[in-house]
Amino acid sequence: MSVTVAEGFVAAGVHCGIKDDSGALDLSLVATDTALAVPAAAVFTSNRATAAPVEVSRTHLLATGGRAAAVVLNSGNANAATGITGRAHAERTCALVGEGLGCAPEEVLVCSTGLIGIPLPFDAIESGIGPLVAARAGGTGAGAAAAQAILTTDTVAKEVSVSAEGFTVGGMAKGAAMLAPDMATMLAVLTTDAAVGAADLGAALTIAVDRSFNTLTVDGCTSTNDTVIVMASGRRASPTTAALVETLTAACRSLAAQMAGDAEGATKVVTVQVTGASSPEQARTAARKVAQSQLVKCSLYGADAYWGRIVSELGSAGVTFDPDLVRISYGGVAVCVGGMAADHDQAAVARHLAQRHVEITADLGLGSGQATLLTNDLTPEYIAENMRTS
Amino acid sequence: MSVTVAEGFVAAGVHCGIKDDSGALDLSLVATDTALAVPAAAVFTSNRATAAPVEVSRTHLLATGGRAAAVVLNSGNANAATGITGRAHAERTCALVGEGLGCAPEEVLVCSTGLIGIPLPFDAIESGIGPLVAARAGGTGAGAAAAQAILTTDTVAKEVSVSAEGFTVGGMAKGAAMLAPDMATMLAVLTTDAAVGAADLGAALTIAVDRSFNTLTVDGCTSTNDTVIVMASGRRASPTTAALVETLTAACRSLAAQMAGDAEGATKVVTVQVTGASSPEQARTAARKVAQSQLVKCSLYGADAYWGRIVSELGSAGVTFDPDLVRISYGGVAVCVGGMAADHDQAAVARHLAQRHVEITADLGLGSGQATLLTNDLTPEYIAENMRTS
Repeated sequence: MSVTVAEGFVAAGVHCGIKDDSGALDLSLVATDTALAVPAAAVFTSNRATAAPVEVSRTHLLATGGRAAAVVLNSGNANAATGITGRAHAERTCALVGEGLGCAPEEVLVCSTGLIGIPLPFDAIESGIGPLVAARAGGTGAGAAAAQAILTTDTVAKEVSVSAEGFTVGGMAKGAAMLAPDMATMLAVLTTDAAVGAADLGAALTIAVDRSFNTLTVDGCTSTNDTVIVMASGRRASPTTAALVETLTAACRSLAAQMAGDAEGATKVVTVQVTGASSPEQARTAARKVAQSQLVKCSLYGADAYWGRIVSELGSAGVTFDPDLVRISYGGVAVCVGGMAADHDQAAVARHLAQRHVEITADLGLGSGQATLLTNDLTPEYIAENMRTS
Repeated sequence: MSVTVAEGFVAAGVHCGIKDDSGALDLSLVATDTALAVPAAAVFTSNRATAAPVEVSRTHLLATGGRAAAVVLNSGNANAATGITGRAHAERTCALVGEGLGCAPEEVLVCSTGLIGIPLPFDAIESGIGPLVAARAGGTGAGAAAAQAILTTDTVAKEVSVSAEGFTVGGMAKGAAMLAPDMATMLAVLTTDAAVGAADLGAALTIAVDRSFNTLTVDGCTSTNDTVIVMASGRRASPTTAALVETLTAACRSLAAQMAGDAEGATKVVTVQVTGASSPEQARTAARKVAQSQLVKCSLYGADAYWGRIVSELGSAGVTFDPDLVRISYGGVAVCVGGMAADHDQAAVARHLAQRHVEITADLGLGSGQATLLTNDLTPEYIAENMRTS
């Protein structure tokens, strides 16, 4: 259950001082055990207000043609909206890790997460990199420290391990708010011992991210720093494309579900499934409109079966829609059929809505397009966590 | 300050029993004092889950070629997602009002607002229409009763009167949640004594709505029932197009501002202005992304100057954006210049954010496109009001 479970990787997590003096881990490393570069790929945020570490990591992967020896990550500061100085800090962080490990600066990728617009306390990072590199080790303890050191408002670390025929994928992630399809205020580092080139690895990662992190929406906000990185040590089997995609997807889905379960202030994890849409794209658009609706999320918090809001969101999603054909179910119990209230077992619906895991299904009755998203309820605790930065 | 201020109109508001037995007014009428049809126009919701009264009013306006003698409105039930029965109820409501006034059913328009998906208690409406028609009168008392009878979660009635050279516009509106551009869970009825045909009236109303209600967003939700109707008695001057547009816009803007000020649970009214965009459309898209952001709205509730979230929303708005050119100000004090934190008077910003009216300006530094939206903060009270329907 760790980023070190795949053969050929080491990890570490230390406290360098970005997170005040609380001693909380705030600097993280995942590296190959040889410090040699291996095939690597990444998916970055679609936000045009790109943070410095995203720009630097993208440039490094291009420069090496898709190879990396290490990823260094910090929490507590996003190094976003920090201009030229921020980019210099991200570059210098990679150079220091490269010096420590004995690899080229371009073979190091960098991620940051935390508050936007505040200069990175670079002294802290500079003093922390020596101890960080020295602390790197294999085993679940080192992986757990690395996973802990990337958390911000998360309450638990997110780790995964998936074994397939002949190879393994391990991973860690953080993310608890500003989560939306097209990624999120989230970072994830995956490792595998599969033997695979950078191009195939990148193609598989893109599919896996689309089927996992991109089906998660907490608040519709897409952040400046979102990054998912995978490195492949090649120590074990060369998988089929299908096996690689499937295994990476399983790992990413587990991490996405862990994020949904730990979303800021949320009391519920909600699956929104749209079926019967004119196309898969329309199903996804409609599901996203429902899953991101403040009013629907308030009803979910109240465990209130007010399906009228779901119909209203479907009608304003911009997709083909006939109000007289729509059918809405909670936990499989239909409450709206043919666009109108349907007699149903109200106690069964109330029991379902009282649970932590809630399922909403909306059938548009038009075609075969379907999509599923994961979301949460909107709670006073979410507001309390996000109303002030200090 | 009333829908009866323009010459030639009467109004009434009664309790018919939709809102339980609390005695609250729930049935409303605005009519010409002669019960003769006059030029009329309307703008309806863009939601495809159109409520029955919207369908019926649209059909009636088409049938009469843009003439109406009355508008009947109920609160407490939206008559939406109610199928064929709902449409029959809306038609029958118009017929009963037509009988009472002595005009054709097609000359009566109908609006409903309240919960979606619950059959309209038509017995209550049927028994209320006689007293409603009998109660119609001129003067501000009758107008105030009509304005009171359309409220749902609103805490205050919204009325307006604007006088221009030779004519007057009066109006009333409701709306306190599910408010978003492309209208809202909002109804508005406007009256004017200007002499103007239905086509010119419709063109002017469309512009006025676009410049007023469509610049308001509380929660990004567009409802099933949104309707703005205007009737022109022709008793006074024939205005220029410019004067008509200007006066209608002023009336609609006042009603929109009253809605923003009464939004569910809100503690602040916030103006989001985007300047320097590549086009006016891009400015509006960017302003909407900022104004609808859950995280930005949480910061506003906390009076927290966390401009990083604004930059992040601008970057993910899908508009042309260069993070190094953006400038963010609160109440005219720049806190981010060239995409980075700027030295500023923190006490001045804190004082501005502590006020009820907050102004955010984001300059993209790219072109001359600009747009302004009105929004609110996101509060625990909003959740409390919307978490349960009963």
